[in-house]
Amino acid sequence: MEAYNKFDNNNEDKYEEHRKKLRAALKEEQMEQFRFEFLDMHPYDQAMFFMEQPKDSRMQIYSYLSPEEIGELMESIELEDIEVFFAEMDPRFASMVLAEMAVDNAVDILNELDKDQVVSFLTIMDKEAADEIKQLLHYEEKTAGSIMTTEFVALYQTQTAKEAMQRLKDRAPDAETIYYLYILDDDKRLVGVLSLRDLIIADENMRIQEIMSEKIVTVSVAKDQEEIAQMMRDYDFLALPVVDFQDHLLGIITVDDIMDVMEEEASEDYSRLAGVSEVERSDDNAFISAKKRLPWLIILLFLGMFTASLIGRFEETLDQVAVLAIFIPLIAGMAGNTGTQALAVAVRGLATGEYGKQGKTKLMIREAGTGLITGTVCGIVITVVIYLWKGDIFLGLLVGISIMATLIVATLAGSLIPIIMDRFKIDPAVASGPFITTINDIISILIYFGMATAFMNFLI
Amino acid sequence: MEAYNKFDNNNEDKYEEHRKKLRAALKEEQMEQFRFEFLDMHPYDQAMFFMEQPKDSRMQIYSYLSPEEIGELMESIELEDIEVFFAEMDPRFASMVLAEMAVDNAVDILNELDKDQVVSFLTIMDKEAADEIKQLLHYEEKTAGSIMTTEFVALYQTQTAKEAMQRLKDRAPDAETIYYLYILDDDKRLVGVLSLRDLIIADENMRIQEIMSEKIVTVSVAKDQEEIAQMMRDYDFLALPVVDFQDHLLGIITVDDIMDVMEEEASEDYSRLAGVSEVERSDDNAFISAKKRLPWLIILLFLGMFTASLIGRFEETLDQVAVLAIFIPLIAGMAGNTGTQALAVAVRGLATGEYGKQGKTKLMIREAGTGLITGTVCGIVITVVIYLWKGDIFLGLLVGISIMATLIVATLAGSLIPIIMDRFKIDPAVASGPFITTINDIISILIYFGMATAFMNFLI
Repeated sequence: MEAYNKFDNNNEDKYEEHRKKLRAALKEEQMEQFRFEFLDMHPYDQAMFFMEQPKDSRMQIYSYLSPEEIGELMESIELEDIEVFFAEMDPRFASMVLAEMAVDNAVDILNELDKDQVVSFLTIMDKEAADEIKQLLHYEEKTAGSIMTTEFVALYQTQTAKEAMQRLKDRAPDAETIYYLYILDDDKRLVGVLSLRDLIIADENMRIQEIMSEKIVTVSVAKDQEEIAQMMRDYDFLALPVVDFQDHLLGIITVDDIMDVMEEEASEDYSRLAGVSEVERSDDNAFISAKKRLPWLIILLFLGMFTASLIGRFEETLDQVAVLAIFIPLIAGMAGNTGTQALAVAVRGLATGEYGKQGKTKLMIREAGTGLITGTVCGIVITVVIYLWKGDIFLGLLVGISIMATLIVATLAGSLIPIIMDRFKIDPAVASGPFITTINDIISILIYFGMATAFMNFLI
Repeated sequence: MEAYNKFDNNNEDKYEEHRKKLRAALKEEQMEQFRFEFLDMHPYDQAMFFMEQPKDSRMQIYSYLSPEEIGELMESIELEDIEVFFAEMDPRFASMVLAEMAVDNAVDILNELDKDQVVSFLTIMDKEAADEIKQLLHYEEKTAGSIMTTEFVALYQTQTAKEAMQRLKDRAPDAETIYYLYILDDDKRLVGVLSLRDLIIADENMRIQEIMSEKIVTVSVAKDQEEIAQMMRDYDFLALPVVDFQDHLLGIITVDDIMDVMEEEASEDYSRLAGVSEVERSDDNAFISAKKRLPWLIILLFLGMFTASLIGRFEETLDQVAVLAIFIPLIAGMAGNTGTQALAVAVRGLATGEYGKQGKTKLMIREAGTGLITGTVCGIVITVVIYLWKGDIFLGLLVGISIMATLIVATLAGSLIPIIMDRFKIDPAVASGPFITTINDIISILIYFGMATAFMNFLI
């Protein structure tokens, strides 16, 4: 068995050896040798090797491989990285590459390119391929339409299992998946689905009508990709049919595309929780990174100024009891932390649809209870610690009660804000951790200094 | 077409109607009617309906359905929710249900149950099924071994395509997937793979040797599930073979299990960033939620006390210039925010393996640059704002320069900490946002008060 698994340590050496041979073949301009070694690799490994090469080696690779071979490799490259490669190819060659790719992937790539470039590629391209692509290009991003492919296998219910098998053999080289066959009626409406597994077991003279399943789950062409990923995971499908409002079959979505969607959505939610508005890439330079992070930081800077001006109002209190300042970061920090915890729980729950209508009220009641318990525990701990440290029970009680009140309010705020956003149809995942933290800073300072000012007599 | 898609609004009514009929059938003890309606649904929808029922209705459902039918439904229930159902079933019935399930899913369930219960189930169970399960039970959690199934189709390279097809028809009802066939040599080592697509296209008299692919990617049985998910996404596989160190085929991992892994790992990373150590469930009550969140909060409380004691050392400075206290939350907050941003970027990058050996140094240099740029911008803004607000250029400069220094150090810390953890083989995702935030609180306060004390003369 030849090994291509670069993930296992024992195989890594062989993979490295492979790459050495490839680099040598490029250097010595040995096209045959290069093709022999290169086409022996999995497309993903081909893509990894290709991306490591400098521009002149890449130009050489374009001339050594066919559009179909380049197309297969391009399908394994992340979309963000792909623009530069299509820009450096000869336009005629690039349009041939696109025509050879799976149509949904070609569309994804075109969505990354300049509009002018897209028009010129589609003009040079073979008409049939161009028409297929144009059909998909106008669907909105992140909907079923934008991630589906039109390369599915459709059959009619009156055909026999034998005829179906024959049709399959013809379509197998082009179709995105042949493991589900979609059954249409005479009006081209979707009426059933037949898994290849059931087709193989069936007697070859049976009619498709008799062996197909009518229990078919479809998605509408405008459905959001995140919900589709959720469905695919729940129902364990390898492919899902996409239909219009009259149940006409428009395309299918396959599981490999859905895995990319899951990864993308998880990265997005994670980055937002941390307050990085756009997902950063590992090859962004410092300026691009700074540009992506600065918007949040500037907003938070001004929110922080607002917090500062709030404390400013209590300057008199502070002048009299400077020791109060010592506990500001502690109280603000605890408020931020508990708020972020509550936020994360609520956002995940909302994203996976765990909460129904009563569920949200139940969540709020639970968070109030959780805030009460964590607040009471932390409040008692801090009162005791401050009493032992500073020997001042009033200061201890002031900080302890502030922490308790703060934790209750901050926990509630952390869950209430995403729920409100969800009600107004805003994706709750945009409520980032830093945002909640800053809101809770403000709440905590008001509680702390409000109480300190009210009970000033006990502190001096 | 009958509609089972509860996600689409136009279908929701029909789904609701379905459930009404089912509830009526249960109430009137109409077993035939219930079976007719129930078995017509997708297993995921069956599971959703089942889980909504009170205990006595569930007991009724167990008696209406066969172990195989219950098994199919159980495969769609989240693992955390499953224990109660197996505990309430008659043990003999429960063991029959487990025996009928896909072996990898049965093993996942047994891993959730009490050890005593597992032993008793395996003792009552049909021997063949019990042996299959026992084989898989001893693999460590979250490794390839623990998520693989042994229900694959293996062939020998000397067989013909026709023989292969025949073998497939026999195995199709049991196998987890029939879309990849694994080819063994006489020592039962894995030597190739044949997709059902290629088998269907092939001439039926060809030998498997001639049509199989030797480009096979395998994973070792001890490999971590997160890495496997990454591989499966990169290579677009529907199934991956699991081998021991001598390339003997032990099992396969299918894409539906990997989607669950992706969801689980994404939830875990997200929760950790927010400082919720264990993933919370929507039906946890307030006490369980509080118990899961308190460990972090208590740790952070003591770290916060440490921050407070640090500020305490500067009490003299504070007594003289009380206005300094006003900007504590602003500076600490900015440090926390920028640190969390840097953390999230580094953790995602490390998780997806985007950084090689030089990559990490490059990341650090970039983060230093990003910190410098964001620090300079925020520092200038704040200096100007404070000058306009308080009319005190020295105070403005003090806060501005503190913010600049803090942002540089905090950004670096946010990326350095996960990289160090990664080097020591600790999953960097355990470095939560609150942890980084608190570390950066301390750094920022030292910088701010250190500078304030040094330049005291200009402030009074």
